[in-house]
Amino acid sequence: MDAQRSKPRLRDLGITIGMLPTGPWNAITDVPGVRVGQTTVLHGDGPLQVGSGPARTGVTAIHPHEGSAWEWQVPSAIDILNGAGEITGRSLVDEFGVLGSPILITNTLSVGGVHRATVDWMVREHPEIGPGGWVAPVIAETYDGHLNDIAGQHVTSEQVFAALDSASSGSVAEGNVGGGTGMMLFGFKGGNGTASRVVEIGDERYTVGVFVQGNCGRLDDLLVAGVPVGQELGPMLRERRAQHEAERDHDGSIIIIIATDAPLSDRQLARLCRRGMLGLSRVGSIAHHGSGDLLLAFSNAEGNRVNVHAPAPILTTTRLSDEYINPLFQATVAATEEAILNAIIAAETMIGRDGNTVFALPHDDMLDVMRRYGRLA
Amino acid sequence: MDAQRSKPRLRDLGITIGMLPTGPWNAITDVPGVRVGQTTVLHGDGPLQVGSGPARTGVTAIHPHEGSAWEWQVPSAIDILNGAGEITGRSLVDEFGVLGSPILITNTLSVGGVHRATVDWMVREHPEIGPGGWVAPVIAETYDGHLNDIAGQHVTSEQVFAALDSASSGSVAEGNVGGGTGMMLFGFKGGNGTASRVVEIGDERYTVGVFVQGNCGRLDDLLVAGVPVGQELGPMLRERRAQHEAERDHDGSIIIIIATDAPLSDRQLARLCRRGMLGLSRVGSIAHHGSGDLLLAFSNAEGNRVNVHAPAPILTTTRLSDEYINPLFQATVAATEEAILNAIIAAETMIGRDGNTVFALPHDDMLDVMRRYGRLA
Amino acid sequence: MDAQRSKPRLRDLGITIGMLPTGPWNAITDVPGVRVGQTTVLHGDGPLQVGSGPARTGVTAIHPHEGSAWEWQVPSAIDILNGAGEITGRSLVDEFGVLGSPILITNTLSVGGVHRATVDWMVREHPEIGPGGWVAPVIAETYDGHLNDIAGQHVTSEQVFAALDSASSGSVAEGNVGGGTGMMLFGFKGGNGTASRVVEIGDERYTVGVFVQGNCGRLDDLLVAGVPVGQELGPMLRERRAQHEAERDHDGSIIIIIATDAPLSDRQLARLCRRGMLGLSRVGSIAHHGSGDLLLAFSNAEGNRVNVHAPAPILTTTRLSDEYINPLFQATVAATEEAILNAIIAAETMIGRDGNTVFALPHDDMLDVMRRYGRLA
Amino acid sequence: MDAQRSKPRLRDLGITIGMLPTGPWNAITDVPGVRVGQTTVLHGDGPLQVGSGPARTGVTAIHPHEGSAWEWQVPSAIDILNGAGEITGRSLVDEFGVLGSPILITNTLSVGGVHRATVDWMVREHPEIGPGGWVAPVIAETYDGHLNDIAGQHVTSEQVFAALDSASSGSVAEGNVGGGTGMMLFGFKGGNGTASRVVEIGDERYTVGVFVQGNCGRLDDLLVAGVPVGQELGPMLRERRAQHEAERDHDGSIIIIIATDAPLSDRQLARLCRRGMLGLSRVGSIAHHGSGDLLLAFSNAEGNRVNVHAPAPILTTTRLSDEYINPLFQATVAATEEAILNAIIAAETMIGRDGNTVFALPHDDMLDVMRRYGRLA
Repeated sequence: MDAQRSKPRLRDLGITIGMLPTGPWNAITDVPGVRVGQTTVLHGDGPLQVGSGPARTGVTAIHPHEGSAWEWQVPSAIDILNGAGEITGRSLVDEFGVLGSPILITNTLSVGGVHRATVDWMVREHPEIGPGGWVAPVIAETYDGHLNDIAGQHVTSEQVFAALDSASSGSVAEGNVGGGTGMMLFGFKGGNGTASRVVEIGDERYTVGVFVQGNCGRLDDLLVAGVPVGQELGPMLRERRAQHEAERDHDGSIIIIIATDAPLSDRQLARLCRRGMLGLSRVGSIAHHGSGDLLLAFSNAEGNRVNVHAPAPILTTTRLSDEYINPLFQATVAATEEAILNAIIAAETMIGRDGNTVFALPHDDMLDVMRRYGRLA
Repeated sequence: MDAQRSKPRLRDLGITIGMLPTGPWNAITDVPGVRVGQTTVLHGDGPLQVGSGPARTGVTAIHPHEGSAWEWQVPSAIDILNGAGEITGRSLVDEFGVLGSPILITNTLSVGGVHRATVDWMVREHPEIGPGGWVAPVIAETYDGHLNDIAGQHVTSEQVFAALDSASSGSVAEGNVGGGTGMMLFGFKGGNGTASRVVEIGDERYTVGVFVQGNCGRLDDLLVAGVPVGQELGPMLRERRAQHEAERDHDGSIIIIIATDAPLSDRQLARLCRRGMLGLSRVGSIAHHGSGDLLLAFSNAEGNRVNVHAPAPILTTTRLSDEYINPLFQATVAATEEAILNAIIAAETMIGRDGNTVFALPHDDMLDVMRRYGRLA
Repeated sequence: MDAQRSKPRLRDLGITIGMLPTGPWNAITDVPGVRVGQTTVLHGDGPLQVGSGPARTGVTAIHPHEGSAWEWQVPSAIDILNGAGEITGRSLVDEFGVLGSPILITNTLSVGGVHRATVDWMVREHPEIGPGGWVAPVIAETYDGHLNDIAGQHVTSEQVFAALDSASSGSVAEGNVGGGTGMMLFGFKGGNGTASRVVEIGDERYTVGVFVQGNCGRLDDLLVAGVPVGQELGPMLRERRAQHEAERDHDGSIIIIIATDAPLSDRQLARLCRRGMLGLSRVGSIAHHGSGDLLLAFSNAEGNRVNVHAPAPILTTTRLSDEYINPLFQATVAATEEAILNAIIAAETMIGRDGNTVFALPHDDMLDVMRRYGRLA
Repeated sequence: MDAQRSKPRLRDLGITIGMLPTGPWNAITDVPGVRVGQTTVLHGDGPLQVGSGPARTGVTAIHPHEGSAWEWQVPSAIDILNGAGEITGRSLVDEFGVLGSPILITNTLSVGGVHRATVDWMVREHPEIGPGGWVAPVIAETYDGHLNDIAGQHVTSEQVFAALDSASSGSVAEGNVGGGTGMMLFGFKGGNGTASRVVEIGDERYTVGVFVQGNCGRLDDLLVAGVPVGQELGPMLRERRAQHEAERDHDGSIIIIIATDAPLSDRQLARLCRRGMLGLSRVGSIAHHGSGDLLLAFSNAEGNRVNVHAPAPILTTTRLSDEYINPLFQATVAATEEAILNAIIAAETMIGRDGNTVFALPHDDMLDVMRRYGRLA
């Protein structure tokens, strides 16, 4: 547990996923240049009054590199495991194979407001957008209406600007924070999580970092390193919940962002997206009907960025040979699995609108289960 | 030229596309229940001042049937010919094969604001969204920044509500109106256009209606019923333009909405989208690099709507056998071609920001060309 | 262990996957009407002589229902997790949403020969194909060249006819049989496997059956019910292998066929395919670069079949509401996971061309591992 | 009309498509290195006897460059306008973005036999396939059963080898030849056609070459340079036909191969495929229900080929900036349109099985129509 953190992460509890090493932060920010900013929106208590609150939400911004995402566009791909969700900007990523904006993640009904604010922010940064250029930013979402006055659209433009402007490298806050503030995972409190892996290919070292805004899964399905923790802890959680509210079946959603500094083409990044799906499966998700399970991958390898102002007629880029890509697949599966578990481990019990309560996963109970399944001494 | 119209349409000029008959309005509203509403936003003149104007823009709303698009969802599909554009809500249409919101079309940078307003409108209509439901509305766009202060985001929530609330069946205004206000087509002023076709299959009559917000194409490429009108009128237009501004190469975009009352599945509607692409080709488009050529098709055949509140475990639906679908393909190709030409014919010369001027296609000059190519007596 | 079997399956060893019950055969044939036929081709020993052998291969035929797959076409979908493989007939399944042939699975280089033979068989069954109809049968493959003289194309037309003609319901042979004869899974001998699940939705019971021809995965990645059996047994297997051949890294492929009698549309069957991918992940696959991980799903619910001779202009079909589909997702994930493990459990050590040897997974060693991980008493 | 040709092509008749110049052969072989080989299979007359004939078919082979397509793989993409057809090898092209075999085009029911023969040929050329490598060749087809004993599978392995071995650069035979021997286009005799365009981008010249095996379209829909030739010549053709056979409605198919030496990525080649669709539309196709309208594009720019034996860990490739791609779109649309028309112009009246007769388009009658529509002096 590093000095900057007050809470343990999965590895601090003695559980590791896969054999590959992590980066120094075990976070998407281990990919050099990637910056994350988050604004958490928390106010009010008690009964839902649409427009007043309570608010249990926020917004997360991810810049794909240290510069302007619009000015220097990076190879990117989007793929969908289950489409019950929104990710704007997809047509452009599909057609051009590049990401041309920061990535914003928020609640379902704030997509429009965050889109509008992101456009304003980009125009502020690049006044030439408008008369001469244009943008279609990537805004994704999951649904927090169980805790949050989601129809109240509480995320303001200023809060979006704050997330964009404050984004930085280094440690990334997890759990009830930013866009993940009011989210749930496998019946427990969920939210944001991150993890990374480092691989060696030839003479080079590359990092894969994953960030999730996690709000999916059903209690009985939760797996921790293959152990059926959901089934084991289910009866206990159901009893605790029963004092607060009726059992509910939660379909949720998850946004999975995969970053790497390995030189990959958009086609290869689409391959990483499909491995993110496999990582999600390892935590027990079956991609429920109502779940928006959306993945975006990008590579910020320096030589492959395209300058929007003055693209040369001929672009020379590098890519890893597909024959050498397996370690990146392994890294993506493992980092996705661990990022989701980190979100669960970090999240804390939250009381939201109408007194709705979502409980944190009790670490000690989970560790007892892991011991019984031969995973801890 | 019918009594309700002050301007001729393509057919009024003696030019027909294909052999199939049109519906009574020759519009998307010939599909029973389809309703169109438009708010045009026009204010200011002179130099661009971002946030002040001049405004040359608007928003168009299409309701897929006479009821609530959210409450009664209809089979739908989206396809992309060239992805340099935005259409939100696509993941849901792809995954569930239904459309669950009205369709809004506006300018590129107003997508966020229109999205936000549409959510507010849907929550107003259906307060159960938020605590218990959710939405991901379809908002599409083309770019009007040559004439409009697009970065000013001039479309207000009230204007979105007005388009949604005022939507009606019957005649549909074309040209410089609604979302199409500031758009261009093949070097001439463009904007909104619509057309329809009626087919008989077995003992039934079905209508295909197409609506376009057209902003694509290059002058030299324009074809009218196969005649190279763009090449013929190019020198004249270039001379006229030269007095106003430098020749510019325009990549644009087009949104094509295809409606039918034929009972089609989402898979079959995707087939119609691809025929919309073929119709676009007939007008001369090569789907330029920077063009967002996006298509959405829906069928509002009554028995196939799904009630969002209480879907039965087993849904019984009908669909046209694929073996009988060719007349609908023919109708889609022809109605798309004619809708685009109707947009050009209806549009009027517009002066926008910084004095930028886009000229209407001169009808008489076009008719002269058509005569020379054996198309008019 | 039922009377007809000489070998245990995963459940016979005390290991279950998920909570859902299986059908009577725990096989794809639990879906009423589905029939499986297999021809195993085994001859020769010693050094590879292309064209002579040794042959360690075969072909598997799956009829989607009790009648003619061409005459009565059923809703179907294909999806690809990793495309390093071949599945013919895909364009048709994509476009029309139906399967119009039996499904044949063989080795990579026999696709052509099996395609040719299948066409001959279909023309024999339906002489009207040719002058008036046509076919594009579904032939899929995995690569058995490590054991088999794959370039020798040893599968004959007669062997294809035999698989098609002998197909039956009931118990399905697993392991080194049919198309799976020479295949490997996670470093051990692999091949064919199957499993099923039964779900109740509303007042109805539906079956999901999965069949795999499995030839993918790397030793270290193998998971059995979440337990890292590959890592645990790796050193032992590597020692055994060392006496026979150099360690090799195997990329392989897997064909996953998902059958159900639930009334699902082609779009919904595509959703099942994606859940098959999640099941594959649970066994430890990361979908290696060189793996052809191809999935096909079909529903043979009786009222939804389309007669190729005389489709009515209007087809009336039923489908499960998507809101009720989750149990089928759960069933697909679990049955896929178990089918792959059944293939490994059933497969026996095989010596192929050039003395190449692939070892069966030793059941007792695996069970020891499972005990240590708290999965067996 | 060049010396090597006995028949006129579209341009020889005074009709040009678009403004771009052609390459020296106005053929796919204008792309340096592209080689085409064709075997025509013609024997027998009179009533259909399946297995005996009459045979009116063949096979066409296209090598993407002067070397081995397997050894040096080139960027490639496949797209489908309407999927009622077969193209094998698609999963690999989709996943890896490269073409790894020659392209073979034949009749629908000979796909298997041609696939088998192509594998044999590739193993002969590269004995390392089999024990250590593998292939999934691209075989595409259209249906010639109206003239040909298609169920007889008359294309032999030797004929496939001959097409592959005899392939050369230079002039390409059109009309009733190779895989196109028994095909129809828009009610007239069709078959093979080709065309090319040369563009200048920056300081470079690039060629786009298109080859089609054309068997699609309905009489009334045929457009020649936008002129409704099908409608004009329909009555005459119907009268002529009436002496021979009942009017039939033909759905057909078309295979469109797009080659270029411009350095394009697989993503960009997919963009060319969609422009091929637009070119098909210009000839009047609505992509009928039963038409397999399949497109494959490849770029053989030298530095971008991948060596299958020894890919480096990092590949450095070039690509044209998407911002500069429009001339290649224009070239693709025009060359596709002209290739189809060249196929019609070159094809000659053919009598096939059961005396079925398909008439060539009468050049003089077509020219009369073109004159009336102001296209010829």
